[in-house]
Parts: sequence; C-alpha cells; structure tokens
Amino acid sequence: MFHHVKELQFNARVSKPDPKFARLLLEQFGGGNGELKAAMQYFVQAFSARQPYPKLYDMLMDIATEEFSHLEIVGATITMLLGPINGELKQAFEDSGLKEMVTGGSASRDALIHQALMNPQFFVLSGGGPTVTDSNGNPWSGSFVNANGDPTVDLRSNIAAESRAKIVYEYLLQFTDDEYVQESLRFLMTREISHFQMFAAHLEQIQPNFPPGILQGDARFTHTYFNLSNGASARGPWNQGQGPWAGGEWTYVEDPISTVRESNGLTNFQQTAPISNEQMNEIGKKLGKQRYAEISKAVPKSTNQWSAYPQNELESPRKAS
Amino acid sequence: MFHHVKELQFNARVSKPDPKFARLLLEQFGGGNGELKAAMQYFVQAFSARQPYPKLYDMLMDIATEEFSHLEIVGATITMLLGPINGELKQAFEDSGLKEMVTGGSASRDALIHQALMNPQFFVLSGGGPTVTDSNGNPWSGSFVNANGDPTVDLRSNIAAESRAKIVYEYLLQFTDDEYVQESLRFLMTREISHFQMFAAHLEQIQPNFPPGILQGDARFTHTYFNLSNGASARGPWNQGQGPWAGGEWTYVEDPISTVRESNGLTNFQQTAPISNEQMNEIGKKLGKQRYAEISKAVPKSTNQWSAYPQNELESPRKAS
Amino acid sequence: MFHHVKELQFNARVSKPDPKFARLLLEQFGGGNGELKAAMQYFVQAFSARQPYPKLYDMLMDIATEEFSHLEIVGATITMLLGPINGELKQAFEDSGLKEMVTGGSASRDALIHQALMNPQFFVLSGGGPTVTDSNGNPWSGSFVNANGDPTVDLRSNIAAESRAKIVYEYLLQFTDDEYVQESLRFLMTREISHFQMFAAHLEQIQPNFPPGILQGDARFTHTYFNLSNGASARGPWNQGQGPWAGGEWTYVEDPISTVRESNGLTNFQQTAPISNEQMNEIGKKLGKQRYAEISKAVPKSTNQWSAYPQNELESPRKAS
Amino acid sequence: MFHHVKELQFNARVSKPDPKFARLLLEQFGGGNGELKAAMQYFVQAFSARQPYPKLYDMLMDIATEEFSHLEIVGATITMLLGPINGELKQAFEDSGLKEMVTGGSASRDALIHQALMNPQFFVLSGGGPTVTDSNGNPWSGSFVNANGDPTVDLRSNIAAESRAKIVYEYLLQFTDDEYVQESLRFLMTREISHFQMFAAHLEQIQPNFPPGILQGDARFTHTYFNLSNGASARGPWNQGQGPWAGGEWTYVEDPISTVRESNGLTNFQQTAPISNEQMNEIGKKLGKQRYAEISKAVPKSTNQWSAYPQNELESPRKAS
Amino acid sequence: MFHHVKELQFNARVSKPDPKFARLLLEQFGGGNGELKAAMQYFVQAFSARQPYPKLYDMLMDIATEEFSHLEIVGATITMLLGPINGELKQAFEDSGLKEMVTGGSASRDALIHQALMNPQFFVLSGGGPTVTDSNGNPWSGSFVNANGDPTVDLRSNIAAESRAKIVYEYLLQFTDDEYVQESLRFLMTREISHFQMFAAHLEQIQPNFPPGILQGDARFTHTYFNLSNGASARGPWNQGQGPWAGGEWTYVEDPISTVRESNGLTNFQQTAPISNEQMNEIGKKLGKQRYAEISKAVPKSTNQWSAYPQNELESPRKAS
Amino acid sequence: MFHHVKELQFNARVSKPDPKFARLLLEQFGGGNGELKAAMQYFVQAFSARQPYPKLYDMLMDIATEEFSHLEIVGATITMLLGPINGELKQAFEDSGLKEMVTGGSASRDALIHQALMNPQFFVLSGGGPTVTDSNGNPWSGSFVNANGDPTVDLRSNIAAESRAKIVYEYLLQFTDDEYVQESLRFLMTREISHFQMFAAHLEQIQPNFPPGILQGDARFTHTYFNLSNGASARGPWNQGQGPWAGGEWTYVEDPISTVRESNGLTNFQQTAPISNEQMNEIGKKLGKQRYAEISKAVPKSTNQWSAYPQNELESPRKAS
Repeated sequence: MFHHVKELQFNARVSKPDPKFARLLLEQFGGGNGELKAAMQYFVQAFSARQPYPKLYDMLMDIATEEFSHLEIVGATITMLLGPINGELKQAFEDSGLKEMVTGGSASRDALIHQALMNPQFFVLSGGGPTVTDSNGNPWSGSFVNANGDPTVDLRSNIAAESRAKIVYEYLLQFTDDEYVQESLRFLMTREISHFQMFAAHLEQIQPNFPPGILQGDARFTHTYFNLSNGASARGPWNQGQGPWAGGEWTYVEDPISTVRESNGLTNFQQTAPISNEQMNEIGKKLGKQRYAEISKAVPKSTNQWSAYPQNELESPRKAS
Repeated sequence: MFHHVKELQFNARVSKPDPKFARLLLEQFGGGNGELKAAMQYFVQAFSARQPYPKLYDMLMDIATEEFSHLEIVGATITMLLGPINGELKQAFEDSGLKEMVTGGSASRDALIHQALMNPQFFVLSGGGPTVTDSNGNPWSGSFVNANGDPTVDLRSNIAAESRAKIVYEYLLQFTDDEYVQESLRFLMTREISHFQMFAAHLEQIQPNFPPGILQGDARFTHTYFNLSNGASARGPWNQGQGPWAGGEWTYVEDPISTVRESNGLTNFQQTAPISNEQMNEIGKKLGKQRYAEISKAVPKSTNQWSAYPQNELESPRKAS
Repeated sequence: MFHHVKELQFNARVSKPDPKFARLLLEQFGGGNGELKAAMQYFVQAFSARQPYPKLYDMLMDIATEEFSHLEIVGATITMLLGPINGELKQAFEDSGLKEMVTGGSASRDALIHQALMNPQFFVLSGGGPTVTDSNGNPWSGSFVNANGDPTVDLRSNIAAESRAKIVYEYLLQFTDDEYVQESLRFLMTREISHFQMFAAHLEQIQPNFPPGILQGDARFTHTYFNLSNGASARGPWNQGQGPWAGGEWTYVEDPISTVRESNGLTNFQQTAPISNEQMNEIGKKLGKQRYAEISKAVPKSTNQWSAYPQNELESPRKAS
Repeated sequence: MFHHVKELQFNARVSKPDPKFARLLLEQFGGGNGELKAAMQYFVQAFSARQPYPKLYDMLMDIATEEFSHLEIVGATITMLLGPINGELKQAFEDSGLKEMVTGGSASRDALIHQALMNPQFFVLSGGGPTVTDSNGNPWSGSFVNANGDPTVDLRSNIAAESRAKIVYEYLLQFTDDEYVQESLRFLMTREISHFQMFAAHLEQIQPNFPPGILQGDARFTHTYFNLSNGASARGPWNQGQGPWAGGEWTYVEDPISTVRESNGLTNFQQTAPISNEQMNEIGKKLGKQRYAEISKAVPKSTNQWSAYPQNELESPRKAS
Repeated sequence: MFHHVKELQFNARVSKPDPKFARLLLEQFGGGNGELKAAMQYFVQAFSARQPYPKLYDMLMDIATEEFSHLEIVGATITMLLGPINGELKQAFEDSGLKEMVTGGSASRDALIHQALMNPQFFVLSGGGPTVTDSNGNPWSGSFVNANGDPTVDLRSNIAAESRAKIVYEYLLQFTDDEYVQESLRFLMTREISHFQMFAAHLEQIQPNFPPGILQGDARFTHTYFNLSNGASARGPWNQGQGPWAGGEWTYVEDPISTVRESNGLTNFQQTAPISNEQMNEIGKKLGKQRYAEISKAVPKSTNQWSAYPQNELESPRKAS
Repeated sequence: MFHHVKELQFNARVSKPDPKFARLLLEQFGGGNGELKAAMQYFVQAFSARQPYPKLYDMLMDIATEEFSHLEIVGATITMLLGPINGELKQAFEDSGLKEMVTGGSASRDALIHQALMNPQFFVLSGGGPTVTDSNGNPWSGSFVNANGDPTVDLRSNIAAESRAKIVYEYLLQFTDDEYVQESLRFLMTREISHFQMFAAHLEQIQPNFPPGILQGDARFTHTYFNLSNGASARGPWNQGQGPWAGGEWTYVEDPISTVRESNGLTNFQQTAPISNEQMNEIGKKLGKQRYAEISKAVPKSTNQWSAYPQNELESPRKAS
C-alpha cells in the first residue's frame, strides 16, 4: 500500500506564473518519456518480479515510488506556473484579471486569447491545473509502459527510458529563466542519471544477461551485417572487425540481394561461427532450466498470497493453501 | 511525496491460477472505470485544490492514495491468477508445463493456444503480468481523467466515477468462484461505496453547489423540457409538475419544431420563471466574488512554494518571495 | 429513426469571423465533455433501457436528440467563425485574401501562418470546417461514452457529464466578446443545467437508488475513512460525525498502516455497523429480485422486435415469435 | 435540429439472443467503416457546404440522417442479440440464468466465462448494451471522419467509405443464420450501394471534377509510372498505352534509380506532355476564380446567420449584419 | 525485401530554416492523409493480392515503394526546415543561438519560447527532427489504413486517399514562399494525381466492379432516396430521373416517416425495379464463383511459400508441400 | 528512395493455415515492439543524423531497411496462415468452405464463428490479410517511435527496443508447431540479437556517452539511493558499495522522509561526491562545445540540400546556395 507525505521530495518553487513554460513542462507530466510513464513502468514490472526476485522487486518499488513523487513535483510546478488562472476564471462577471496576468495590464482580450491558445485546455478544460497529456495535448497512454516479464529485458527498457527522460529535462532547461524552476528540473534530471546507474548495476549482476531472455540466436546470423543501402557505405566496429562478443568477427554482406537469391532466401546461407548452434542451444537449455527453477520455486501453482502481515521478510509468503 | 508499504491494504489471495478471470479483472486495472483512473483523477484534481482548499486537498490525496493501493491489490491479484505463466515461458526448450496449467495435463497445444488467445498479451507480451489496458486490451488513456478545477464539478465527477467502478465490481463478482478473489473484490467494491459517500458529504457542505460553477442559467430555459421525439411520450417528475428546485414548475414544449420556428430560433421564447435573469445574475456575481476571494487570497501571484518543511499545517506556505 | 429540421434549435449567429475562438470552441464539438459525447452517451444508454424502462428511454432519447441538435449549433458556429477560409483557399493562384481576413490588410504572410498555426488543421486539413477533435486536436473517442446498463449508475454519469459541460461553457464565455456567440453559448450552457435537473429528478424517483446497482457493501468498510497521508489532517462531515446515511457515524482510522498490519490485511478488521451484513444481503437480494423481474418481464428470450408500426405505445412490441 | 421517431427505419428483429454475433456486429456500430463513421462524416462535411452549396448540403444531411437511423438499427440489433444479459446480471445473489442463455442449461460456469471472454465488455462494462467500439473493442475515433472542405474530394471519400461499409456487411452476412438479422443486414448493405450511387451522381455533375481541388499537376509527372520493384513487371492500362485522360500515353520509367541520378533528382526530367504546364495553370486559375466566386458570394465576411425561421429556402439567410 | 538508395527521388532543398512551416508539413508525414498512411495502405493491401492477383500486387508494391520514398522526402524537408535546432540544443551552457535562428538576433527568450510553443515537441522531444504525428501532434494510427481484401473496394479507398493527399498538398502550398519547398510539394502533389489515375485505370479493367464485392443489393432499395429533412429540398441527378445505372429511375420518398410506418418498417415496401432480386442474385452467384475460382486456384490450402529464388515470374511459387 | 525486391529476405513458408497463430503473430506486425515500430524508429532517427553523423545515418538506414523487409516477412506469414479465408469469403452464396478450413469438415457454423471471434477483423474487416494492429487489435501508434535527436539516447532506445522484440519472438516460438514458421521466427529473432550488437558497438565508440546528452547531473544526487519502501530492504551493487562509475560509493538514505524534512526539501542536502559540481559543469561545457561544433559545421543555416546526384560520398552535399 502507499502512504502520502505532504512534503514534496524536493522543495518546488516558482518565481512567478508562466503558462507558456507550463505547457512545455507537460511533456514530463503526461508525455511518453515523463514521470507517469516511468512510475507506471517500474510499478507494473514489479508485479512479476515480486515472488521470484524479491530484491529486484524492492528496487523497482523504491524507484517507482520516487517517480510518483517526481510526478507530484512536476504537477505542483505546473500548477504554480499557471498561478491565478483558476481564481480569475471565477471573475466571470467582472473584467477578469486574466489580462493583467498575461500582459501586465495593458493587453487587449485578444492577447489573452492568444495566451490561451498556447494550450487552450489550461483555460477551458482544466481550469488552471495540469492535464494528463504531453505538451501537445495528447493523452497519456498505457502503451507507453514496457513490461515484458523478463529482468534482462525490463532493465534495458528502463535504462533507455531514463536516457530519454534525461534528455527531455536537458532540453526543457533551455526554455526557462526561472531559477527556482531550473533548480527543480536539475534535481529531477539528476535523478534520471542515478536511476540509470541503479538499473545498470542490477542488470550487470544478472549473469548471463545477453542475449536478453533465454533462447540463443542462430549462429549464422548473429554476427552478420546486411548492407541494404547503395553508394558509399560506412564501416566501423558495428560491421567490421571484432564485434562486441567473445571470439569471431563481423561478416559483412556487401550485396544482400544477390546473397538472398543465391542462398534460397538465406536458408542455405553458410557462415563460420565462433560457436556452433548446438553449443548455443546447450547454453539456452541450461539457462532456461535455471530461470525456470528460480521462478517455479517461488510461485505456487495453487493457493497464493501476496503479503505477510507484518511483512518482515523480502519474500512473499507463497502460502501453499 | 509517496512512501510504499510492502503489505497490501487488503490481504489479496487466490485459490489457484485462472488466466481467464485475470483478463476480465484487467477492466479494473487499466480500464476507463478502474483503479488507475480513480487514483489519477483525484491526484490530478488535488493540484488546483492544494492552495485554496487545503481540506479538500487532504481528502482527495487520502482517497487517491487509497486508490493507488487498490490498483496494487488488483495488479497483485491478476499476477497471482496468471500464476506459473512467467516461469513456464522459460521452459522454451522443454515440453512446457503451460499445458498442464491450462488443462490438467491432457491438453493438446491447441488448447494452450486457445487459452492464450483469450488475451494473447499475457503470453506473448507481458510474460505473465498485468498490462496497462482494459479487458479488451485497450491501453489506459489520460483522457479518462476528469479534473476541471472547480470542486462543485469535480466532486460530482467523482461520485459518478465511484458509481461506475462499483457496478463493474458487481458484475465481475459473478464471474469467479474463487472465494479468496471474491473477498478482495467485495472489499474493493465496498470502498467505492464509502468514497461515494465521502465525496457526497464534502459536496453537500459547499453551499451553494448548484448549478456547478458560478454562472447561473437563462431563467427561460432552465426548467423547460423539449419533447424531441414522436408518438407516446412519458411524463414524470423530470418534465412535469414541481421540478427539483425551489418554486415553479417544468414547462413542457410539446412541439419543439413549431416553437423554434415561431420564436425565431428561441430568441423570442417567453417563459415565466420563478426568478428573473437579473436576480440570477446577482446570485452569480456574488458567488463569483466569494470564490475569487477564496482562491486569490490563497494563490500568490509572484513567488510560490508548495510545501513547508516540515509541513505541520494544512495550508501551503504560499511564500511571497 | 431520425428526421432533420433545417432550422437550428437556437438562432446561431456570429458578428465576424474569429478562427481563434473557433479553436477553443472545438472543445464542445469533439472534446471529452462536449456535445457529441453527451449525445452519444444518452443515445447508447437508451438501448438497454428501451424494453425494461420505456419512460427512461423516452427521456434519454429526447435529451440525446437535443444534444445532437446542440452539436449542430456548435458546428455551425465554428464554421461561421472560420468564415472565408474555405473560399480563400480556392484563390491558390492569386494573392490570397486570407491575409486580409486575418489582419485587416497589412499583414505579412508570416502573420497568416501564425494564425494558421493556432490550429493548422482548419487550414490544411478541414479547409475551413470543424474537425471531430477537441481544442488541442485530439480526435473524439468512443471511450468518452459511459453507459453501464444500470439506471442508478447511468443517471449519475449523466449528472456529472452535464456538470462538466456546464463549466466548460462557463470558461468559454470569458474568451469571446461577440454578443451573438455569447448568446448561443449562454443558451447551450443553460440547457446543461436543465438536463442536470431532469436526470436528477429521474434518479430521485428510482428507489432505492443507493448504492448504485444491486449489491450492498461490507458493513465494516462502508463508513470507514483511512487517513493515508501524514501531518495535519482535515476533519469534516466526510470523515467524522454523522455520515450521509441513516444511523451510525464515520469511523476514522488514524494510522492505517498499523491497522492493516494488525488485522491481517483487514480480514480481521472489526467494526460496529448500524446494520449487519446479513441485513444488507437481504436488502440486496430483494432488490435484485425486483430488478430482475422488471427486466426479464420486458426482454423476451426468443424472437424480439424493437418497434411497432406505428409505435403508439411507449413499450416495445416484445414480440414472442 | 433533429427529431427522433420511435419507429426504426427498418423493422429490426432477432430470432434469439446471440452474443457472439453481437460482437462481430460491433464492427458496424463503432468501427472505422461503420454507421457512426458514415453519419458523422457526412454531417461534418455538410457544415462547409451549407452556405456555398445548399443542394449538396441537403443531400449530405439527408444521408447523414439516414446513417444515424442505421446506427440506431445496428445498436438495437446488438441489444436484442445480447438479450437477457442485462437482466441476468441483476440476479447477483442467485444462481444466475446467464448459464441457461449461453448453453441451454447444462453448462458450467466455465462455459459462461468463456462466452464472456468473447467480448468481456458486454458483461462487465456495458451490462448488455453496445459499446462505442469496433469488434475488437477499439473505441471509435474522430480521426475516422474525412472532411476536407472540397466537394470533389469529399464525395470521393464518401464513395470509398460506402464501398468499405458494403463489403463489411457482405462479410458479416456469412456469420449469422438468423433470418431476421440477415434481413436487416441486407437492407443496410443495400443502402450503402444506393448512397454510393447518389454520391457518384452528385460528383459527376460537378465539372471539372478532376483533379480534385483546384491546382493542376506538373505535366511531366502526371502520366509517368516509376517501376520501383525488380524482376518480372506487370504491364496494363495503369502503366502502358492510353491512360484514363484525353490524349497522350503513359510514360514507363523502367529504371527509376538511374533516371533519378541522371536527372538531378528529377529536376531535369523531360517529358513530352499532351498539354503544357502553362495551359494547365490557366485551367487551374480559371477554376480557382470560379470556385472562389461561388463560395465568397455565399459566405459573408461580417455578420452571419445559419438558419431562417422558418427556413423555406435551400439557401442560408447569409445575413449581412 | 527493400533496398535503400541514398538519393532522394526528388531533389529536396530548402532556402532557409522555417520551423513554423515544418509543423504544417507534419500533416503529410504522420497525418491521416499523409505519405506514411498511403505507403502502409498499399503495402498492406498487397499481401492479400500477392497470390491471386500478382499484377495488382506489382502495381501496389511499386506505388507503396514510391510513397515510402515520398515519406523520406517529406521527412528530409522537415528536418532541413528545422535546421540548426538540433545543434543549438547542444549549446546548453552557452547563450544559445536558438534566438538568432528564430528572430535574426534581437529576440528575447520569450520570442524563442513562443516559437517553441508552435510545436513544442520539435524542441523538447524530437530535438529537431520529425515526429510521427500530424500537424497537431496526434500520433499516426494504424486505423488510418484501409485494406479490406477486395480489389474493387481497396482501389476505391486508394482513389479517395489520393484525392485527400492531393488537396492537403494544395492547401500547404499556400503557406510557404520558399521556392525550393514549393517545387518539392508540387512534385509530390502531382504524383498523387498520377497514382489516382493508375488506381482508376486498374479498377476500370476489373469487370464487373460495381457494386464493390460480390453480393448484389435488394432491388427495392438500391435506387430509392429517402428525403429525411424538412423544408425546401434539392432535386438533381442524385435523386431524380435517370440514375447512374442501366435502366430505371430514382424513386424519391417524399415522406419517409409515413412510408416506414405504413410499410411495417419497409418490410412491405414495394418498388418496381429494372431488375428482379432473383436476377441480381444470379449475377452475384456467378461473380462469387468466378472470384472464388481465381483466388482458390492461386492460394494453396496446405504448404505455402511466398517467393521463388530468384523470383522471375510475377506469380508466387504456391508450393504445394 | 527505396527499391522493392520481390524476393523476401528470408524464405517464409507455412505448412498449413493457422488463423489462431496469425492473431498472435500480429504482435510483431503492428504491435508496440514489432517490426513496423523498429523500422520507423530507425528511419525517423536517421533524419537528424543525416548531416552531422553520416556514418550513423548509413547504419540506421541499413537496419531500418532490413526491418521493413522483416515487416514484409511477418505480413507474408500472417497472410499465408490465414490461407483460404479471402477466397472463401467470396463463396457468399454457397455453403462456404470456411468451415472445412477451420475444423476439417464436420464443424457447425458455430465453430466457424468461434474461430472468427478469435480475431473477428481477419474475417469481417481485412478479408484475410493482416491489420496494422497488435494481437489484441489495437492500432499501431506513432507514439511507439522513440527518436530524440541525440545518438547517446537513440542508440540506447534501440538496444532496449531490440531486447523487447527478441523476447516477444522467444515467447511466440512456443505457440506454433509449424517448422517452417519456427524457422522464420528464429531467423527474425536472431536478427534482433545482431542489431542489438550493432547498436551497442556504435554507442561504445561515441565517447563520452554517459550521461546521455550533454548536461552533467548535480553531484549530490547522482549516487544517492532513497529507500522509499518500508520493512526488509534489499542491498546490492545498485545501492551499496562501489557504483558503476569511477571513484566513490553509493549513498543510501535509509529514511528519506526525515531527510527531506530536515534538508528543507533536499535543498540543503549535503553529500561528499567524487567530483565537484564545478568540475562536472566543465565536462558538460566542453562536451557541449564539441557536439555543437560537429553539428553546426554539418548543418547549413541557409540553403540546404539532402542528396547529391549521384550520391557518391557518405556526406550530404550541404549546399550553401
């Protein structure tokens, strides 16, 4: 269960309202790389980790909880940047103070509407609060969440998610002069870096962690590069010389169209590989057995219970009826 | 900020895996009337309430936090209902135990695939965990959240949201025989009833709370019913006799097409109303002033800060720089 | 079936084109709280009401039909606000008059594009007509419609929907000076108030109407408030003293974390309730029987027919083959 | 404005409930080629036609209104196919009759759930009514509507839309044995054919209607076919001999890659065309002037009004303030 | 398989950066009528054409491949229009040159943000590249693709799609003064015209091609027009006189409500038709047999193979195991 | 531009139709981790790489082109798995052979519909071809594409995308017995592994590549772990001892709530870091200058051209007008 603490994790402040920057900042509230996505991604991944991998569960829930706390910081900042809009909208019968807010007193209603059009929904829909959208008004989608039930995949999804969240904060920092806001953004950006390192460290201690999952590839194709574009072609460590694996080199297929034709659609493609498909299968089988054992030991096939009361162990009670 | 407690709010258990019911239960995980919707709706509404209405903020955050805790219960139940899928998928090289789970041992692979097709994404995408979707696989959308920056509107949105969540639990209860699962669903359903009553009680003490917002209607049209369909017409307290307001009765327009034609598109429509438009405007103006005063007093137009450290008051510090 | 009347229900006019306000007004055309949502919501709810509750059906279809008529008013107003765009776009070979429209004659092409960017789709997609989107360009979604097959739920969804539609018109009214447009918006806003009251009156005469649906809650949890946030906590009629029900008071759980731990995840939670679970179940059973009787009497299990020709009764013919 | 007639346009009946076919039929309720799409497409196109092209407006509104009437037929049929679900769900405390409906009396709860899983939302969300989705549960989207403010484009969009709706009814007819349902589907399918012909006839009388819009193409590229795939290539009236235009033949570019390289990215591409670019521009200019004149004459740039009361002419009053 | 050629099909150039027009141009990148929609539509249609109709397949793949090549031109143009944004964002520690780009050197940061708000995602999300969205930021959707497995339907969908793409380019051309950009747009617009003609020519040689699909309509309703709106009604070739078919005239139902009532919901509607339903059924049966024969001959029911190596025939190898 | 080669890159075959597995396989056609997502992601990333990083561009386009070729393999396989559906649907007047296909000859129509319901859109919408959706029928969305204009971010997004695609193929392989299909899936799965390694090798040679982007974090927070959940807590290389960076250790904040309160919302949080914020800023500035130089050298601020004709260099012509 969750508990809410009224203090924000970081002391979010704004120097003055700025509805324009509020719109940009929505990218981190309801956008595809924002805090809600991160929070939900780690929260959802945690479910299948709970019983087989309680240490991973603990880390995922710690970071998910922090991301929900960051979502709160972003929402609070947006709300403060929208400042008096909510109150001014109540002045429906008066000459609304919205004008003053926007332009310093002398603006026409046209200027007000112009401001509103930057993100009309702050004015005519949310009444001065955040919306669960990105900076272009697209609603957050459950499809943003990547959770595939395998730690060697999920942790890589998280490393990439943190990288994207980091660059979006980096870009955002260039669009506000408010030092208070910059301070909060810098804190949030830094935490993406630290989470990146936590996920990387956890992935590192799972061995083997490559390829992700269990099954090994077909040795004829794992180190083969198909040159599928014409003209001058770039060569580098991604398609020539030693690849990022033990033993063996990249195979560069200069003319894939001819190769495909001559090899009956690659079914007859021959390739000396540093390791045979039989050996690869052995590795996969062994790994499959090991992972299966870990998980099936922890997840009962009959009665199951999620928590002990109190929960003093990392492990779930796995009650067997 | 949030804090995570490893104990679920309710002791969720399952008697045995049941992937079919897991699919149905997704409706309350990532569906339009589910727990994530409720949690996010109250959480987002809380932002614009924070400074002007700190008591409302406290209630919204208490209930939002409980809904996140319910989301966790639903996700945990789905995961336990999916039971060994995650582990069996690691048996990629063996004769997978997935069959046994599904059918008790004698099933063909076809039966397994049939089971998978009920919700293929539990098998080929999430690897045995919940997806952020409804029971038909549609991703959760930020557009599910209703937050309009006015308590007399938002609280009514919440009453309706709780009503819908309640009926979905009521329907779900008819599709499982597992007593443990029924117990959890009954708890969750009951909490929707209790939240309904909290929102209703809070709305009741805001006076006046009708019409929602500030502006009063045009007295000629507030109590008028247009009979826009032919044939036998139903009459009842919604279109005849005393309406649900003080003084005056419903006006029933029997033949709206003629009325519209003869009144120049209703611009000349005459109607004796229990209260004049001038009086209604006075009510609106007075209410607008009052609400404006409440909000503008609480929301600074310059430097703003969300939390005090420690936060020992209900009120936000409203720091004026 | 429907019949179209060329006269708008209200005499919609505009004083001059105003593409900026046209964008804002889209919120009521294709937005989540707009006229299409309302029309479709009542129309869809009407299907399951048709046979068991023909009076409710009549009211829902009257109001749905009015909302389609309002959708037409909003679309007509948007089109008139976009004025000559459609024609000017045909001047593709000339020095288009679009400039003049936007700025009064002296503007650069840049000003024109600026105008266009406010909502580019009026210019490059719809050619000067409405789009089925909200003010940020998000397409209308079938998920906006709430229809759950139970009048005590659906009518509450409608009350909330009308509340949101009302506040959006209230906000919109502050962004146009055009008196003709204000007149139309005020009419439309007023009708939301009147529909609110129709739905409320209909709900009131369904007894009992609480809790929504049939099933009663668990008496231990219906009146219990969990204080899930730290620090200063607000107390009021929503969590202390007499609640909005007959007999008994709110139970306030000060420290839910300890309570959950000590009650084995609330399974042992004890609570004196004004009414026992057995009594509640009796109420639910009786109500279930009554509703089942009403519906099953009206809905044949074999051959069924929707309309009589002519349809002179409220009831559907319920032809039994 | 709209008026609702309680009689369905076609006498929709069902022989017995059939929830499975109800799911398939959703494709025509809330699917991308369904009745709501058609109704909304013609309704939205009608707005920009209203003033310049009142005859087109009349036809579009007649057909849009018929499509709303068809939507009602489809929704009524789905509701009747779902039969007693709504009532049975009220039997929450009893041994629900849902079983009997599904299987004829002997089925286990498992069979019931299986039925539910075909489209769980009929059971746990809509309570036995239609949802605004396609047959896979995807919500209807405003992006289904094609309306581009040009009759030579919009009418072609409508011809294609009717073609798709027709084929979907054709496919659906193969999945039901219920003669009543077949009868309704056949009526609806036939109306798609008739609408197709109305749109085609209307398009035919607009001259010139090709190319759609105003601007003519670059004569070097209008009749040129680029052979962008290898191996055996098909030749036919779409890329050789006389094309579907007056004078001149298709140019077939056998080896587009070389052609692009040698013509500096086609900027130097030479082509004898049956008509010069100058001539084409003249045609376009003349057509632009004509269409501009038609539209700008009908759409006032100042005060505008949509309807007269009563509306006895086809034309909108075009009130000039 | 595909091969990429580094030369663009058309020599896309820009005179200077113009982020505002870049936003408008997104409509053709990720919009509902844009290049990705066209490319994917023809590509997806090609799958079911591959075996029964290899000539159609060849044409669809040629044009799909060209549309992918156009998508590349549009994306390249957007990227060049966004010019130095990507680089300037790297100046995070400096006084960024973004200002200079936007305003020529003298602008305040406010002007920069204003520019950014036109489409914030170019600045804070994509870092200066295209997004897979339309001009309002809505993501491209798979539901844009119309592919129904019947050439007489699909080709009509394509004709309509090309018409819409053409008009969007026509509108876009009015919002840029950059002659290089105009040149590319004119090329792209012209190709929509040429594709329109290829699809029309291919459709023409399929006989019969009307009605789309196999089933013929009910002769009583194919030529009947229901006048579903009141007041002055337009008459023309779409509802009077000879219709666009051989023999017979339009039937105009002046008062559909009475007609429906009197004909028992049209079930008794009588109509002299130029051809009887029996004759129509014969046509349909014959056509169904023919199409079935064509397809079933080409698609094996057992082992199947897509390509020969090398593929020197138009036909797929249809390997029979 | 693209060129299409009629031979599939891999010789896709099926042993017999299997519509059920076709549904599952849709996950790799239009799903969030499927081939279209991969193809579009690398294709879109390539635009901003084109001018500053032509070697990266070459690699991205080679792999994007291969992913389009894989999309074709997946679509071809789905089509072959749907086998005779397209043809049988033409038998509308006969006793359709669909039955035989599904059940081997003896099945009732009910069995046929059951099959259809597995994915109704194969039957009633696509007519036997793929849809641009995932296995639950959700349409592909442009929001699946991650492209942020920074190679150190984009390459990590790609590594994660390949990981997810790999695991989905791994899961899919367990749901088909068809050896031909398994062969194709194994090839496709292997290519995800090889692409993973190409992206990793390319990322490795960009130095420094951490943190992603330019800006360095706040040294007080980069190595700090907040223990945001109660009870037993897991410790490991992700929150204790040496972290994955040079010098210094993880700081573990045992009680974040107290820490936040006492440090005024972390603004006074003190932390000895292995490197000072000033040093970090220096690193960032230097890196920003370098990246800015690379990009601004390659991207002209005035006239720009994408391709040379012929394009014999890796570099874009960068024509300065």
